[in-house]
Amino acid sequence: MALIVQKYGGSSVADAESIKRVAKRIVDTRRAGHDVVVAVSAMGDTTDELLDLAHQVAPISAPRELDMLLSSGERISMALLAMAIHSMGFEARSFTGSQAGMITDATHGAARIVDVTPIRLREALDEGAIVIVAGFQGFNRDTRDITTLGRGGSDTTAVALAAALQADVCQIYSDVDGIFTADPRVVPKARKLDVVSSEEMLELAANGAKVLYIRAVEYARRHGVIINARSTFSSGQGTFVLAPGMTVPAAIAAIAEESAMEEPIVAGVATDLSQAKITVIGVPDVPGKAAEIFTVVAKSGANVDMIVQNVSAAATARTDISFTLPKSDAATALRALAAEQPGIGFESLVHDDQIGKLSVVGAGMRTHSGVSATLFEALSTAGVNIEMISTSEIRISVVVRGDDLAGAARIVHTAYGLDGDTDAVVHAGTGR
Amino acid sequence: MALIVQKYGGSSVADAESIKRVAKRIVDTRRAGHDVVVAVSAMGDTTDELLDLAHQVAPISAPRELDMLLSSGERISMALLAMAIHSMGFEARSFTGSQAGMITDATHGAARIVDVTPIRLREALDEGAIVIVAGFQGFNRDTRDITTLGRGGSDTTAVALAAALQADVCQIYSDVDGIFTADPRVVPKARKLDVVSSEEMLELAANGAKVLYIRAVEYARRHGVIINARSTFSSGQGTFVLAPGMTVPAAIAAIAEESAMEEPIVAGVATDLSQAKITVIGVPDVPGKAAEIFTVVAKSGANVDMIVQNVSAAATARTDISFTLPKSDAATALRALAAEQPGIGFESLVHDDQIGKLSVVGAGMRTHSGVSATLFEALSTAGVNIEMISTSEIRISVVVRGDDLAGAARIVHTAYGLDGDTDAVVHAGTGR
Repeated sequence: MALIVQKYGGSSVADAESIKRVAKRIVDTRRAGHDVVVAVSAMGDTTDELLDLAHQVAPISAPRELDMLLSSGERISMALLAMAIHSMGFEARSFTGSQAGMITDATHGAARIVDVTPIRLREALDEGAIVIVAGFQGFNRDTRDITTLGRGGSDTTAVALAAALQADVCQIYSDVDGIFTADPRVVPKARKLDVVSSEEMLELAANGAKVLYIRAVEYARRHGVIINARSTFSSGQGTFVLAPGMTVPAAIAAIAEESAMEEPIVAGVATDLSQAKITVIGVPDVPGKAAEIFTVVAKSGANVDMIVQNVSAAATARTDISFTLPKSDAATALRALAAEQPGIGFESLVHDDQIGKLSVVGAGMRTHSGVSATLFEALSTAGVNIEMISTSEIRISVVVRGDDLAGAARIVHTAYGLDGDTDAVVHAGTGR
Repeated sequence: MALIVQKYGGSSVADAESIKRVAKRIVDTRRAGHDVVVAVSAMGDTTDELLDLAHQVAPISAPRELDMLLSSGERISMALLAMAIHSMGFEARSFTGSQAGMITDATHGAARIVDVTPIRLREALDEGAIVIVAGFQGFNRDTRDITTLGRGGSDTTAVALAAALQADVCQIYSDVDGIFTADPRVVPKARKLDVVSSEEMLELAANGAKVLYIRAVEYARRHGVIINARSTFSSGQGTFVLAPGMTVPAAIAAIAEESAMEEPIVAGVATDLSQAKITVIGVPDVPGKAAEIFTVVAKSGANVDMIVQNVSAAATARTDISFTLPKSDAATALRALAAEQPGIGFESLVHDDQIGKLSVVGAGMRTHSGVSATLFEALSTAGVNIEMISTSEIRISVVVRGDDLAGAARIVHTAYGLDGDTDAVVHAGTGR
């Protein structure tokens, strides 16, 4: 008998029928002899509808009250889920973030978990109940106020519960079958991975893969939680995300263990069309100018990703600096830089939102040479121009034209021998 | 400067515009120099929508989970209301039932308040904030679970807060201008009362007046809280409900104090079409039969109101017993009685759901004679047949044909000199 934490997102509990389907899956897990703790998100579009109401009553929302408002969404879904399980003859109890002992700091809207004291959850489990916990929300001890964890908060709730309860596995359910070697909508021959390392997963998530949130993966790695990303709409084993040295317990997935032995050099190809590029032209080539520029950009609230500085043109003693950032941050960053133009002394700004980023991720890069050569050769053969390059220990990213991104991803996927025998099935388009 | 508790029902906060209107009224009260604590219900039809969802996922709802579900409605309205007040430049903080210290017993769906410990509310008031509290909900200390107070729960929340905080007045806002001498939809010449005693109010509420809930009025009487029933949609002073010996503080309503001096004999005429009559025919006229009958009825869950036993027909040694009860309880009570027919030994059952109850309520009845004579004369002159009579110290109720009720109410209203000079304005039909 294992202790299994399951997380269901908003699309998995969008209406009464979906809730009953999820309840059945939970009951099936219980019937198999396992203890079950479930973290659940708000139903479907509830959060957006509440945000819309908030905007209607006040142009700017008081952060404490916004958290109070948004946290009501999970109360609805968790109570309904517990009722549905009840009506199938199983005992289920729902708990708010504060009842579950999800203690956070006081940062409304993006609180960080500081402690998890699941006393009531343990009591309920000991009494044989299925435990349902509101995802996304917590409680600050000092202010005694309700907080929310921000984007992907329910994933983090599930992983934090799994860590605190020493669960055998944390299953994250969504509408895709697991982690793929590439986005199946971009690369039809993408293969589902049976196992991926948490480091690879972090790089994939940071570079465009959307199945898991970075925060949850980080938390799982730090606390030794096995994540299993799988689909609500199929019975596949999904993908196991393992920290170094961890193995999937045989009881949970014999199949996954096998494939973990293979250890491919490249785990996957991530694609990202959400970034823009800003080029600062004619920056005086004197020490400290790059620092000035990125201080201004950071203060504007933008998250800079890749940076490239051109070789200085000796004749003018000026250089160009390019960087990428989320498209949504670009306007603010441009305004901030323009305001500081006289002080920094650059000549002009160029904004380009037609770029695409392609990343190759694999823990095998540490010990295998030639990985980057394969990438550059494949892109060159295909006539795709590389505009920027950045690397980490287990990742190579390149910026290309946005229009070239999908084709480049397919070519690179093939070049690394990642192609599956058949096209991947895409659930994401079903609207569930 | 006074401490004022205000309660706004679901129709007063049905949408973003209504919430902003209520926020403005609260801010106006604050601007006038008062401390304000607000109890708020869920928006418009939220509770019905949540109940509907619950029925979709489970035929029978687990009571603990149903309370968890329903209590989310007030979280939404109270957070939005606090945001709206914030955006008008005033500090406002919302609190759930448990945060507000609303301690109840563990009866899910109909919990009773056992203690109110508004520590956080006092802190917030001391810091100059407007306090918003979720109506209808509480918290049980032993189970540490969320409870709801049942029908009219938000009125009770407001009165309990007013008692615990020793507020100067508890204003209950709804879509009517206050307590009337009769239902203005039945008796157009009904007058708004400036003051009514809590005893009279209890009799009026128990006999068909719908503006205030009995539980809230009882709580207010026991704890010496002044209730002021008034309209969200007008600026009238409304009606003050006073326990014996209490007077409206001059600061709050000079106008109301004056009219309190008058002390009319009859405060109002209540009408009620929600009851049915059951007659048990041919009951053996031996001791203990009435007890048997009403034990069966009570066990069926029905609330019996009036009871009449006919004079026994000596020849048969059998009698008839009639009683009234809510129409919604009649079918269950009839089934329960039919099942016990052999044991009790009655001959048959007659069910009549075409009755109307008319009640005349007035504290002055204690000291004035002839009050009932006026009622019977008026009904006799109008040719209205009286089917049952029951009286309390300050009330006379009669059962008549349902079709006769409205006409009878108008005639009786006139007979007691209650008619106003002009027709009452009815807001209730505006759909707000």
